[in-house]
Amino acid sequence: MRTALHDLEASKIREVANAGLGRDDVLAFWFGESDEVTPEVIREAAIASLQKGETFYSHNLGLPELRDAIAGYMSGLHGKVAADRIAVTSGGVNALMLAIQMLVDAGDEVVAVTPVWPNLTAQPAIMGAQLRCVALQPQANGAWGLDMAKLLAAVTSSTKLLILNAPNNPTGWTLSRAEQQTILDHCRRTGTWILADEVYERLYYAPSANGCAPSFLDLATPDDRLVVVHSFSKSFLMTGWRLGWLVMPASATPHMGKLIEFNTSCASVFVQRAGITALEHTAEITPRVVAHLKTCRDTLVPLLQAVPGVQLAPADGGMYAFFKLAGHNDSLATAKRLVVEAGLGLAPGNAFAPEAQGWLRWCFASKDLQRLAQGVERLKKWAII
Amino acid sequence: MRTALHDLEASKIREVANAGLGRDDVLAFWFGESDEVTPEVIREAAIASLQKGETFYSHNLGLPELRDAIAGYMSGLHGKVAADRIAVTSGGVNALMLAIQMLVDAGDEVVAVTPVWPNLTAQPAIMGAQLRCVALQPQANGAWGLDMAKLLAAVTSSTKLLILNAPNNPTGWTLSRAEQQTILDHCRRTGTWILADEVYERLYYAPSANGCAPSFLDLATPDDRLVVVHSFSKSFLMTGWRLGWLVMPASATPHMGKLIEFNTSCASVFVQRAGITALEHTAEITPRVVAHLKTCRDTLVPLLQAVPGVQLAPADGGMYAFFKLAGHNDSLATAKRLVVEAGLGLAPGNAFAPEAQGWLRWCFASKDLQRLAQGVERLKKWAII
Repeated sequence: MRTALHDLEASKIREVANAGLGRDDVLAFWFGESDEVTPEVIREAAIASLQKGETFYSHNLGLPELRDAIAGYMSGLHGKVAADRIAVTSGGVNALMLAIQMLVDAGDEVVAVTPVWPNLTAQPAIMGAQLRCVALQPQANGAWGLDMAKLLAAVTSSTKLLILNAPNNPTGWTLSRAEQQTILDHCRRTGTWILADEVYERLYYAPSANGCAPSFLDLATPDDRLVVVHSFSKSFLMTGWRLGWLVMPASATPHMGKLIEFNTSCASVFVQRAGITALEHTAEITPRVVAHLKTCRDTLVPLLQAVPGVQLAPADGGMYAFFKLAGHNDSLATAKRLVVEAGLGLAPGNAFAPEAQGWLRWCFASKDLQRLAQGVERLKKWAII
Repeated sequence: MRTALHDLEASKIREVANAGLGRDDVLAFWFGESDEVTPEVIREAAIASLQKGETFYSHNLGLPELRDAIAGYMSGLHGKVAADRIAVTSGGVNALMLAIQMLVDAGDEVVAVTPVWPNLTAQPAIMGAQLRCVALQPQANGAWGLDMAKLLAAVTSSTKLLILNAPNNPTGWTLSRAEQQTILDHCRRTGTWILADEVYERLYYAPSANGCAPSFLDLATPDDRLVVVHSFSKSFLMTGWRLGWLVMPASATPHMGKLIEFNTSCASVFVQRAGITALEHTAEITPRVVAHLKTCRDTLVPLLQAVPGVQLAPADGGMYAFFKLAGHNDSLATAKRLVVEAGLGLAPGNAFAPEAQGWLRWCFASKDLQRLAQGVERLKKWAII
């Protein structure tokens, strides 16, 4: 067993969820997933494919028709993105792992902006990289912000890869277009690759021309050292399908094909058919999903803000309320107590970075808005005792 | 882009297949896959799950009921294998990659017995390992055999991992129980992990008590440094489903759970439901699949042996006829010519190791036996010209 793996932390979120095992009265908001089933039209596409007998291996990079559909979808949002820059993956996390396998040798220096989904910092560790974290700063209003000077100082010509997740899980922090331009210019100078996890780009609540968060794809040339990761999970309610994609320079795509061959061979054809149908129906599905999530956010945040000791700002993107609870400085202990004593399932902030100790993450992707209100009632009762 | 990845060869099998792109008259036997659709009862299980709305994330290690079913299936073949030793993966190749991520640091020495499926040697290279290959020897009758002294000399206390695939793709070589015992004893002395790719164990045509090739699981204790890789692909006609599993020491399983989280999160629930149904029906499905493959082998091999210049022995396991064709010493060039000039799609031997230069691999998993005979006719006509 490798030390690198042995030392990797098991998920603190799972640790909290385990504290509630066997209890069916817990209101669970700990995982980053809606409780809504995938739309029927998408499921029907997979069923039709299975009935047709599409049960064979397929192209490493994905069905040509899915790659074309993704290229069309991306081009609609970000300007021309050619299909030869697209690889279909077995989920967003798989896309991230493949990108890191492509770019990071053991010993290489990787910089990540945190707090962030722990998978993004675990993956370079699996490849034996040296990881340096640049912490976002919590501000007086409860929002988290980037100290650009600190980030630029951390990314030097020794930095192989910069990992960014914006809109951010867990903080809801987003990057402005101007900030992206500054980062891109800097990384061009240092020769650093940018790995942009933009899976939440459609879950964006600030005004925008295209209903989409600012993306590095809006600024970069096709040949920039940029890999962008996407997923069907969030915008299409397809978490369990394990389908995602990568956008990269076209010259990298054949090498990515090799990596997919050696990691998973390919995504299942019947799952890819579902992806094609999802994209065909994005005009109906995505605005509905996003509008509902915005209602969730706007329901939850004021209720939470009214709880004594709670500090948070509404997230500009993503599907999380990330808040500090005064007087409770150990997030993991607090989250476990909340499960056991209040029947409320939240994710502990220190699962995402040490600097988020004392914070809690609430996934507000709830079909039923009443569940959110009920959850806040449980928190309030527990916090006041 | 990493040099390690840049230098990885793209698949020579795909290179041959590409030579036939756009031609629908090629009889293709190049990929390791039956042309038979997954049995309906298995597809129906996935369809029912999708209709029920099982579209959410699930356990990293797999559904408890699938892990139990796999443990029961493995125990029936190899004596007690506990469910806490099982992890469900997104295919056999994914299981292999996860095992290598668990065991191999950059710079570690890995020994592999070749010729072998190229993924098995590419995966340690992706992790930055130092790979040493021990070549099987072709014998006068066309079968390939292991020089045990050579293997034992290659595996020393500096060897972190030994990779074995038996029944072997492409040669059909199998390990005897006595050989497995010798290897296990030796690796216990050197402290070397064994990674046994046993995905073809049910496709075994020599006499046996349990319809199964000898397995390291028959000999090892649960705590031996042994990881065994399996797949639903071959025995259940489920290649495109991307579902496999690992058997490992129970103490390693939680760490494997972390790796799965960071690589793919989990296998889709609806795919896992199909796996459960496959195992429930193994008594009907597997013997039928194996009997048909034996008929395929016994149809193809004598026909091939009758072609002038062909040298091969019937494989004891797997689903490949691996043969030498006199006067054609460049496998890749030969395979490409066969596609273009004869409409026959075979895999070139040197895709599997340099020592298999001059050999060709024919996957005999063909629903229609006539296709095999037709293919031999094309080969004969071409070879005689």
